[in-house]
Amino acid sequence: MSVNKKILFSLGAMSAVVSACTADKQETSPNIILFMVDDMGWQDCSVEFWNQRTHYNEVFETPNMEHLAAMGKMFTQAYASSISSPSRCSLLTGANAARHRVTNWTLEKDKTTDAKSASLILPEWNVNGICQVAGINKTYQATTFVQILKDNGYHTIHCGKAHFGAIDTPGENPIHLGFEVNIAGHAAGGPASYLGETAYGNTPDGTHQSLFAIPGLEKYHGTDTFLTEALTIEALDALDKAKEYGQPFFLYMAHYAIHVPINKDMRFYQKYVDKGLSEKEAAYAALIEGMDKSLGDIMKWLEDNDEMDNTVILFMSDNGGLSCSSYWRDGELHTQNYPLNSGKGSAYEGGIREPMIVAWSGHVPPNTRCDEYVIIEDFFPTILEIAGIDDYRTIQPVDGKSFVPLMLDAGKNISKGRCLYWNCPNLWDGSGPGIGPTCSIRKDDWKMIYYYETGKKELFNIKDDISEQYDLSADNPHIVNKLSKKIGHFMRKVDAQRPSFVTTGEPCPWPDEL
Amino acid sequence: MSVNKKILFSLGAMSAVVSACTADKQETSPNIILFMVDDMGWQDCSVEFWNQRTHYNEVFETPNMEHLAAMGKMFTQAYASSISSPSRCSLLTGANAARHRVTNWTLEKDKTTDAKSASLILPEWNVNGICQVAGINKTYQATTFVQILKDNGYHTIHCGKAHFGAIDTPGENPIHLGFEVNIAGHAAGGPASYLGETAYGNTPDGTHQSLFAIPGLEKYHGTDTFLTEALTIEALDALDKAKEYGQPFFLYMAHYAIHVPINKDMRFYQKYVDKGLSEKEAAYAALIEGMDKSLGDIMKWLEDNDEMDNTVILFMSDNGGLSCSSYWRDGELHTQNYPLNSGKGSAYEGGIREPMIVAWSGHVPPNTRCDEYVIIEDFFPTILEIAGIDDYRTIQPVDGKSFVPLMLDAGKNISKGRCLYWNCPNLWDGSGPGIGPTCSIRKDDWKMIYYYETGKKELFNIKDDISEQYDLSADNPHIVNKLSKKIGHFMRKVDAQRPSFVTTGEPCPWPDEL
Repeated sequence: MSVNKKILFSLGAMSAVVSACTADKQETSPNIILFMVDDMGWQDCSVEFWNQRTHYNEVFETPNMEHLAAMGKMFTQAYASSISSPSRCSLLTGANAARHRVTNWTLEKDKTTDAKSASLILPEWNVNGICQVAGINKTYQATTFVQILKDNGYHTIHCGKAHFGAIDTPGENPIHLGFEVNIAGHAAGGPASYLGETAYGNTPDGTHQSLFAIPGLEKYHGTDTFLTEALTIEALDALDKAKEYGQPFFLYMAHYAIHVPINKDMRFYQKYVDKGLSEKEAAYAALIEGMDKSLGDIMKWLEDNDEMDNTVILFMSDNGGLSCSSYWRDGELHTQNYPLNSGKGSAYEGGIREPMIVAWSGHVPPNTRCDEYVIIEDFFPTILEIAGIDDYRTIQPVDGKSFVPLMLDAGKNISKGRCLYWNCPNLWDGSGPGIGPTCSIRKDDWKMIYYYETGKKELFNIKDDISEQYDLSADNPHIVNKLSKKIGHFMRKVDAQRPSFVTTGEPCPWPDEL
Repeated sequence: MSVNKKILFSLGAMSAVVSACTADKQETSPNIILFMVDDMGWQDCSVEFWNQRTHYNEVFETPNMEHLAAMGKMFTQAYASSISSPSRCSLLTGANAARHRVTNWTLEKDKTTDAKSASLILPEWNVNGICQVAGINKTYQATTFVQILKDNGYHTIHCGKAHFGAIDTPGENPIHLGFEVNIAGHAAGGPASYLGETAYGNTPDGTHQSLFAIPGLEKYHGTDTFLTEALTIEALDALDKAKEYGQPFFLYMAHYAIHVPINKDMRFYQKYVDKGLSEKEAAYAALIEGMDKSLGDIMKWLEDNDEMDNTVILFMSDNGGLSCSSYWRDGELHTQNYPLNSGKGSAYEGGIREPMIVAWSGHVPPNTRCDEYVIIEDFFPTILEIAGIDDYRTIQPVDGKSFVPLMLDAGKNISKGRCLYWNCPNLWDGSGPGIGPTCSIRKDDWKMIYYYETGKKELFNIKDDISEQYDLSADNPHIVNKLSKKIGHFMRKVDAQRPSFVTTGEPCPWPDEL
């Protein structure tokens, strides 16, 4: 039996009619799997996203990503925000982070996670995340694409990390945002532990436990089941159930991997030690391969259940690899995403460029690459277009553009001449190149980063200088001027936030006000 | 803090607008609690729903129902279907059972629960229950009032028995039908056990366990927590969380009590033995009082949290008390709902008349009674009217009428001249007076029952003869004729089902075809 035989678009308030049976629109809708990895850098795999093979491509082993890439298309310039919550909130809402104002990571209600600044007053951002209802303090209210999928007949499954809203706010629970199943998702953006032996950070009586303790996987407590594996088993069970329901499904497979703590996944760890990696690096490589095995297990389920031809798989990460912590990674700091500069939290490519692959049998040409850029909020309209849903309404404006034309090599190139924007008026709790209050723009080959505190503007030609080593701003004042205007216009349009100076209390200027 | 300070009606696809922020309609919406008891008869309490105090009112002790009745209004002629699934599907959809065709109890996918008939071919009813999506075999697709509440900003909590759809169909999970929280609800319509000591029917390895084993209460396994108490504790935890969210809440507190098995709730059992009741009757009385304690605990939560004034409480049962089983009840069969005739499964009042109370501080006059009749599908428009939601859309036609005017002693009397209809073309697996394939009508004081197999019509004046002892059909042919026409017209209009004769293969006539 095929899960997605017929999907009748009559469900949900939008398409329903008052007290009358509708002549249902009948369509064939594919299953959709969004395989989202956490904190995975652009080079954290054996798949070559650059035009050269790197050391990391040699070290890390991700055979299932290779398989997926052979089935479909690699996107080599896929962007997100440099931190988890901004990315995930953009993903679910289609709104740019400058608009939704969830610009740092969320956890506790009404509490900021910003580091302290001596010179800047940081803005009152949406520390409580996104929310499906109005009137909730410090949240961005939105209609998620998941809710729209549900309203149009999809069975919607959340597995893994949610991180959409703070504890005790409505957005903490993926169910409130349109998911019908929630496996282990809650407010926290990382796991207390990946180890079943430690009950994933839970304590026997539930007291004095970390806010990052993983909920809902009690049956694995005390076993040697690594969190990545437990989530995979639960996801496959949910797919078995989805098949019974006879609805098309949306699976958001959102691994906690490869976020810290970098616990050792002993299924793969020794292999990397034997390859000569240090303890930390072997643990990191094993965490990656465990994630990759999960991808393989899900693809096997699709094959075994004759659903591969009806399923779109989207692979993505939420921000760049962690490169500012010698506690977790070996090697020189800020080089772990080479050739990209810096890592998680940074406005440089190392913080925002993601490994992305899409596969859809019979639609996406196999073994292809797309070098056009896309950004995390593009998934919102893309997924709805894949689902065949063109008549939907949202509370919020959608900034994303569908990349279906890029997937299919059909229609208009959405990237040419397009401006991508980032806004981080915050102080993330890490430090390194490009980490701090900035806003940025990418337009064609150019990228400009603006530093709120100093007013400094950096201009890079990304095509020629992927490592962002050569600041060309001094030689190209007209481009800097043009990009400054673009940023200023966009930030004002979406009512973006910016820091203020402690000394004067005045807001930092927008880049076109300097 | 008050949970329901402000609720902004901007959420959900219906009221949202394409890519634009709405000027949200801002209202104060009350919390709503629907306290639904299972299989509770009209006399299974110390509250007097009849105009006389009965033996049962003396035996059973329900002080919290008495408190609720003093706070609000008793409805003395509140009806449901005579079986659980038809009632609950009407509740959630607002559709009469004749229309939704879930006319017997549901459990396993594509399997009927009808008993065998030698003389009748029973129709292919919706054995899979209700469903939120189209295209699912043998289901009735509908927009539930719960989904509408959720779409309009309510936090929606399900606790206890669901019984809306068969196993492995979408309707098995309350989350799919608009609930955001599901505590212990699934496809089954009764508990395998109320005893924590027996893990509520679950087996250690999950194999060979009853389909009625209660899900999701693992933390109480091996404890002496009676199911009724466990559900109450969990519901109060959910209310604590709702308070944090700052949304108004809808709590569907749907006890498994007082469905069989009539396990002994040892907190109350001995008291009834001491009062002289037999073992079975003492167990039954204890099961009732445990349910009543839960009502009291919830009312106490409302008081303690300063939410009583903002909360509407609706008390109801889904069908009449079980009276056809000497295995579970002592005394002469079919008398357990006295003065009503028969019980669960029957077209007589004992099968369909329910204990119902509503309370809403400042709105419903305290310590009052309403003798007008209402029916289970009326809860749908009533609850939405209470919530202040008047602009909603449903896939299905809504047969129910809001009883808000009756609650408030304001506006039009919805009952005067109104016809209520029941259709049961099935053979429930019990036997007794009025149990079998029938359809019925209530209009003002008259009630007519039509037996599909024999063509027999019984006519009662309910006001004069609440026990339905005096069939007045022979003396009132014009009334029989008129009511037969009403039934026939309604059943054809809603495309109701009826049995056929084995001998001829012809459908049984509608009452106006005889």
